Amino acid sequence: MNSSLLKIHIPRGEESAMGPGKADLLDAIEQAGSISGAARAMGMSYKRAWDLVDTMNRCFRQPLVETATGGSHGGGAEVTDFGRDILMRYRAIQHTASASVEDEVQALIALLA
Amino acid sequence: MNSSLLKIHIPRGEESAMGPGKADLLDAIEQAGSISGAARAMGMSYKRAWDLVDTMNRCFRQPLVETATGGSHGGGAEVTDFGRDILMRYRAIQHTASASVEDEVQALIALLA
Repeated sequence: MNSSLLKIHIPRGEESAMGPGKADLLDAIEQAGSISGAARAMGMSYKRAWDLVDTMNRCFRQPLVETATGGSHGGGAEVTDFGRDILMRYRAIQHTASASVEDEVQALIALLA
Repeated sequence: MNSSLLKIHIPRGEESAMGPGKADLLDAIEQAGSISGAARAMGMSYKRAWDLVDTMNRCFRQPLVETATGGSHGGGAEVTDFGRDILMRYRAIQHTASASVEDEVQALIALLA
């Protein structure tokens, strides 16, 4: 089962501290080494990517992403050890939840037209 | 764990045949006995509710909602036995998936600021 069928959010108040889009953004920042590069790779605006990073960093006890100052869009960025831990936990949750209902979802899909 | 943290969609092509909003709409139609009443109860437009019902009815093998003709907004509507079966299966999937990751989600929530 495609784990993208399950959209899991970790709420903090009215915000989502972690969700499918933020997890993918963390992966993209690891790949690109910058928020602007990650935004480009995901086809989202730099402002949108920065807002998502800001939300994650505010919602958790420690920053998930650290940025270097300098450059037109603030230089490079990297996912912290804490951020990698959160991402790994979130991916495990996606996997476990998807696997737990794989048969039931397939049975429901069999009733589609 | 609040099962609304997990948004589960049953895809058919590019559409979502079943998801949190459609499941809640089926419940509301059972309560209200009409699409217009369900739309009012959920604070959505009649057109939006009708479109969601139309999508469900097209995506599955049998209709989930049957409407009576007549009246300004097409008279009453009821959830079919097939629709109740789909809804029950979907609710079970939501419950199982949420329960499967309850501890892991709580551990992640403990890392919030």
